[in-house]
Amino acid sequence: FLFLQIDHFGFDENHTFQQRYLVADQYWKKDNGPILFYTGNEGDITWFCNNTGFMWDVAEELNAMLVFAEHRYYGESLPFGNESFSDSKHLNYLTSEQALADFAVLVEYLKTTIAGARHSPVIAIGGSYGGMLAAWFRMKYPHVVVGALAASAPIWQFGDLVPCGTFFSIVTNDFKKSGMGCSESIRNSWNAINHLSSTDAGLQWLSNTFHLCSPLKNLQDAAVLKNWLSETWVNLAMVNYPYKADFLQPLPAWPIKEICKFLKDPSLSDKLLLQNVFQAVNLYYNYTGETSCLDVSQTATKSLGEMGWYYQACTEMVMPLCTDGVHDMFEPQKWDFDALSEECYRMWGVRPRLSWILSMYGGKNISSHSNIIFSNGGLDPWSAGGVTQNITDSLVAVVIPDGAHHLDLRSRNPLDPKSVQQARALEICLMKQWIEKARHSH
Amino acid sequence: FLFLQIDHFGFDENHTFQQRYLVADQYWKKDNGPILFYTGNEGDITWFCNNTGFMWDVAEELNAMLVFAEHRYYGESLPFGNESFSDSKHLNYLTSEQALADFAVLVEYLKTTIAGARHSPVIAIGGSYGGMLAAWFRMKYPHVVVGALAASAPIWQFGDLVPCGTFFSIVTNDFKKSGMGCSESIRNSWNAINHLSSTDAGLQWLSNTFHLCSPLKNLQDAAVLKNWLSETWVNLAMVNYPYKADFLQPLPAWPIKEICKFLKDPSLSDKLLLQNVFQAVNLYYNYTGETSCLDVSQTATKSLGEMGWYYQACTEMVMPLCTDGVHDMFEPQKWDFDALSEECYRMWGVRPRLSWILSMYGGKNISSHSNIIFSNGGLDPWSAGGVTQNITDSLVAVVIPDGAHHLDLRSRNPLDPKSVQQARALEICLMKQWIEKARHSH
Repeated sequence: FLFLQIDHFGFDENHTFQQRYLVADQYWKKDNGPILFYTGNEGDITWFCNNTGFMWDVAEELNAMLVFAEHRYYGESLPFGNESFSDSKHLNYLTSEQALADFAVLVEYLKTTIAGARHSPVIAIGGSYGGMLAAWFRMKYPHVVVGALAASAPIWQFGDLVPCGTFFSIVTNDFKKSGMGCSESIRNSWNAINHLSSTDAGLQWLSNTFHLCSPLKNLQDAAVLKNWLSETWVNLAMVNYPYKADFLQPLPAWPIKEICKFLKDPSLSDKLLLQNVFQAVNLYYNYTGETSCLDVSQTATKSLGEMGWYYQACTEMVMPLCTDGVHDMFEPQKWDFDALSEECYRMWGVRPRLSWILSMYGGKNISSHSNIIFSNGGLDPWSAGGVTQNITDSLVAVVIPDGAHHLDLRSRNPLDPKSVQQARALEICLMKQWIEKARHSH
Repeated sequence: FLFLQIDHFGFDENHTFQQRYLVADQYWKKDNGPILFYTGNEGDITWFCNNTGFMWDVAEELNAMLVFAEHRYYGESLPFGNESFSDSKHLNYLTSEQALADFAVLVEYLKTTIAGARHSPVIAIGGSYGGMLAAWFRMKYPHVVVGALAASAPIWQFGDLVPCGTFFSIVTNDFKKSGMGCSESIRNSWNAINHLSSTDAGLQWLSNTFHLCSPLKNLQDAAVLKNWLSETWVNLAMVNYPYKADFLQPLPAWPIKEICKFLKDPSLSDKLLLQNVFQAVNLYYNYTGETSCLDVSQTATKSLGEMGWYYQACTEMVMPLCTDGVHDMFEPQKWDFDALSEECYRMWGVRPRLSWILSMYGGKNISSHSNIIFSNGGLDPWSAGGVTQNITDSLVAVVIPDGAHHLDLRSRNPLDPKSVQQARALEICLMKQWIEKARHSH
C-alpha cells in the first residue's frame, strides 16, 4: 500500500488514501532491469494479477520486475472506505485522470525507493479499460513509461469515432460462426420472451424454465431478463477462449461453440426455443454444476467492481452502443444519450460529459505519440473501438483474428492458436526494443 | 466569452464559468490558415494582448488568426465572481491542469464553430508562466496544438532541477555589468537599512528619504521595505529592454544602466548610500514623474493578478529560490520549504506539493515530446530555470544573450539587438515548418 493524494488536481481536499499494489521481483535483474507495470482497471488487483499470465511468462526472459497497481475505488483501494460510493461528493475523485496520476506517483516512488530501480525502464501493460489506461499513461506521462501494451483497449469507442453498432455485430458473428441456427435462435428468443411475459402464467413459466432465484413479476422484470441474456451473450463473446478457462465464469474451451449446440433450430415454438436458451445460459452460469438458481442481477465474477464502473460509465466513460436487430441478433435499441444522462443523474447525481474523453486523450488524432502496441482479438466485441491498423512506425496495431478479449495477456497454453503466439512474439520484440533504447539513451 | 466547466476533472461540481478570449482574424486565410493561440498567464488578457507584439507582427506573414485566451481566475475570467478568492474551496479549481483543459476545449470549440478553421493548425505561444503553459499544452495535448513557442518559460525552476541561487546571481550580473559599483552599492544597502531601522529616528528617516506612502513603524516594516527593494531589482532585470517601454512600469531604454548612474560609490555612508538607492528605485516607480509617494505593497502593473499567483505559488508553482550574498547582491536567505508551507497554510488553508509539477510535466525528462521552442534571454533571471540547450531536433532552445524577459515576444523595434532579430527569424521558420507538416499530414 502507498499513501496517495485523494485529489491530485486540487488542493482543498488534502487527504490521502492507501493504494494497493503487488510486486513480484524474483526474475528482476537488480541493475536497472525493466519493470512491467500493470495499470489496474475496474476490479480487485489480485484477480487481474492472476489473469495476466503473459506478464509472468515474460518476466524471466526480460529480467523484469512485475508490478500490479490497483485502480482507486476498486478492490481494497477505497479512498473513503465504505463511504466511497455513498454520493457524488465521495465519488468525485473516481476518474481516469486521477488514476493515471496515482500510477505516475507510484512508479516514481518505486524507482526512488527500490535499490537498483532508479533507471529501470518501465512499460505499462493493461487489458480492456486497463489497456486504455496503459495507452493513455504513455500518452500523458511519457517521462514515466517508455512504452505501453494496450490489449483490447477500445480507446475509440467514444463520441462518433466508430459506428455504435459494430460492437454487437461482432458478438453476433461469433455466434453465427459457431453453429448453424445459433444467432437466429437468439434473435428469435426476444419475441418469444415478449409473448410469454405478456401473461402471468407466461412469466411464471419463464421463471421456472430459467431457474431464476427470484421469479419475474411484470414486464419490467422481463426486460431485466432480456438485458441479462444480452449481457451473457456479450460476455461469452469476450471469453470465447480456445481452452477451458475461468475468467468471468468457469467455462469449457470455445464456449460459444458448446452453447450453440443447444441452439440449432431457430424455428422452434417459443417454449421449446426458450428451453434451449436456458440450456445455453445454464452452461455459462452453471458449468461447474454448483449453481442452484440463476441470478439475473449478476453476469460475471464478483472481482469486478460494478458500482465503480457504472459511475465511470456515467461520467467520463460514455461508450455509445446500439443494435438494429438486422446486422445483429439483438432487439433494436438506438443509442440514447439523453436517457443515459437522466439515468445517471437519478442514480448518482452526475451527468456524463460526452466529448471530454476526446478532448483529453485526442480521439483519433494521436499520431504524435510513440511506443504503444494496440492488440485486438477478432472475436472480441471491444475490437470495434480498438486501433486495428498501424498509425505510425511506433504506434503498432496487432490483430489476433481468432482471439477473444485480451487473449494475448493470458498465460501460454498448448491450445493457443498460432495468431496469438505470433502476437505475443511481436509484443515481446517491441518491448525489448523500447528497453534497449531506454538503456542507450540513459 | 465561452462557457467552460469549472471542474474538468470531477463531476460533482457541474457548474460552468465564462472564459474570456480575444480574436483577431484580419490577417487570417480562411481556408485553414493557422491559428496562433496565446496561452494566457497570471493577468488580464488584454494586457498580454497589448504586450505580445510579436504575434501581431507575424500574423500577416503566416496568414494567421490570433487568439488570446484568458487564464481562469485572472482578468474577467473569474469562476465565482467576487467570491473566487474567498477561500480554499473557491480557489480549488485554480491549477495549471484546469487551465490547460480550458485551452483544449476552447481550441476545439473555435475549430468547430469558425467556418474554415476545422483543419487550421494551431500553435501555442506564451511567455513566462504563459510560456510554461504553452510548452505543457503541447506536451499534454499534442492533438490540439502542432507546436509551441515557450518564451522565457522556467519549466525547470522546480524541485532540485536547477540550483536555487542562479536566479539571483543573474539579477546581480545584470547590475554588475551595467555600471561600476552598482551591484556593490545594492549589496551594501541592506546593512545600511538594518542600521537605520534599529532606531525610531532611523525608521522615520528611511520613510522620508524613500517618500513612502505609509511610514515604517518597526523592524517588520523595514523587512517589508527590503523585500520590496529586492523585488524591484528583480523586476528591473526582467524588463531591462533596449528601448523605452512600459511593461511592468514605464521605463527608459536599458533601465538598469540608468539606475546604476545613481549607484556608483558603494563605500558611501549609510545615509548617502540610501539616498542614492532612493534615486534608483524612484526612477523605476516614478519615471513619468506622476507618483507622489512610493507604495511598498506594489511593485508592478496592476494588470497582473497577484492574489491568484500567490495562491498558485502556494500550491503547484513552488519555485525554490535562494541567495547567499556572495554570488549575488542580496541578503542571504536559504530556501525554506517548511516556512513556505506554514505561510501558505496560514494564508489560504492549503499546503504546497513540492514534487507534483515534476510528476505531472516530467521535469528534465521530456525528450519524447516534439515541436517546442524554448527561448530565453541571457539577462533574464528566469532563464535560470529555462531550457537553454537543444534537447532533440524538435525541442529547440533559442538563446538571446542580450535579451531580458521574453523580449522576443515584443513588437519589432529599431533598437532590437541582432540576437533577438535572429531568434525571431528562427522561431518563425520553425513555426512555418510545423504548419507545413500539419498541412501535408492532413
